[in-house]
Amino acid sequence: MSLPSGALSFLPILGLPEVQPGNDLSALLDAALRSLPNQELRDGDVLVVAQKIVSKAEDRYVDLCTVEPGAEARELAQRCGKDPRLVELVLRESTEVVRVAPQVLIVRHRLGFVVANAAIDQSNLPQGGERALLLPVDPDASAENLRQELEHRHGLQLAVLISDSFGRAWRLGVCGTCVGCSGLRPLVDLRGTPDRSGRPLQVTQLALADQLCATATLVCGEAAEGRPMVIVRGVPAPYFATGHGARELLRPLQQDLFR
Amino acid sequence: MSLPSGALSFLPILGLPEVQPGNDLSALLDAALRSLPNQELRDGDVLVVAQKIVSKAEDRYVDLCTVEPGAEARELAQRCGKDPRLVELVLRESTEVVRVAPQVLIVRHRLGFVVANAAIDQSNLPQGGERALLLPVDPDASAENLRQELEHRHGLQLAVLISDSFGRAWRLGVCGTCVGCSGLRPLVDLRGTPDRSGRPLQVTQLALADQLCATATLVCGEAAEGRPMVIVRGVPAPYFATGHGARELLRPLQQDLFR
Repeated sequence: MSLPSGALSFLPILGLPEVQPGNDLSALLDAALRSLPNQELRDGDVLVVAQKIVSKAEDRYVDLCTVEPGAEARELAQRCGKDPRLVELVLRESTEVVRVAPQVLIVRHRLGFVVANAAIDQSNLPQGGERALLLPVDPDASAENLRQELEHRHGLQLAVLISDSFGRAWRLGVCGTCVGCSGLRPLVDLRGTPDRSGRPLQVTQLALADQLCATATLVCGEAAEGRPMVIVRGVPAPYFATGHGARELLRPLQQDLFR
Repeated sequence: MSLPSGALSFLPILGLPEVQPGNDLSALLDAALRSLPNQELRDGDVLVVAQKIVSKAEDRYVDLCTVEPGAEARELAQRCGKDPRLVELVLRESTEVVRVAPQVLIVRHRLGFVVANAAIDQSNLPQGGERALLLPVDPDASAENLRQELEHRHGLQLAVLISDSFGRAWRLGVCGTCVGCSGLRPLVDLRGTPDRSGRPLQVTQLALADQLCATATLVCGEAAEGRPMVIVRGVPAPYFATGHGARELLRPLQQDLFR
């Protein structure tokens, strides 16, 4: 399959099993790639992985029966109409409650993301029991480990993004958002680059990792057809670099206009 | 070029000229498609068009020399350090000033978008003179007209999205965002769809049009290599529908938690 210059392709990995705690994602990926023809990693591919399977592999499950809500959680739970045990977990995962309203609990996650319910997930778990699934402890480190393992196995230059679906302040619908990044510049600074008429661009920093995760999440699918890994092929070579992380996408607190 | 099931491709249209006021975008697109081999529209393609060229074709230029700033614009200009004539234009295009700070002017555009400087653009204009470029008067109508014209010319089912780069509340970097939509559901409601374990998904409305525009904007490029039209190939057929518009992506004012 050859693509015209400048094209990007999003290719779902087919054949992945349901991920279990302790699974090695790079080994699962390799088995899936080998299970079907025409699935392969190539030099310069970006692998986008759904946060959910990273959290599952890292056993970030919490059994809600084991959670004892404190006074703040019980009070907040009453205001937002959510399970006090879930609210307790949200508070433990957060540094700040941003907004509370009926059925709404938006916090600043300890990793810096402003997100509903601290991105704690209760869907797509095996039936039975009430379990919550937290974000990985350090998604940038998870992405870095997976990238290094895959580069070692395949002898290729790759990048790994970990994606989750977040809501937005003023727009409906969730959009894939980067929560972990390795091997790619999450933010591309084009300030000073000349535009078509030779005038330097003023304020263009591209949220590259978020832009890729937005579409990758769509290709992953949210429901029964879930395909939690997607290869993005065609990302320009200058965007690859080590030593970056998704935290670079966070607006610094002193620039947050909505506190 | 055949793609695996579930894959999405973003294919930039090469060979488009600089768009001039009065240009017919469907005719420019057809000429560009014919100018190079292996460029074609197919049934089920989504065409993403940069807002900038729609505004140029619709001559949404304003010569800043002709703008007389009023008292409110002069006062705001002092607070945010921007050109009072630009601020006057921003106010004319807006229904509400959301936030003002040094170098920051965030408003609710008359079309409902919360966006910096009312999405008024001063880059990528031909050299000389100070001109501003406003959003199209009705981007959903612009998308609808272009879709109907292209479907008529090509005898295909298509969708057209108009994309602009918007900043976000809590994250750095701009991300492609849908400001006009025709032929596609901008918001896909998956609530009630079973997940992998059979449990209905709780809150998943996908911001489909924004997810596609996010990556399309990346393929468009912001600088000298600008390719202001991109074909998205592989969008599932059930997502196509007429009678929708980008305004459906706006969070209703009464759900806006940040007023």
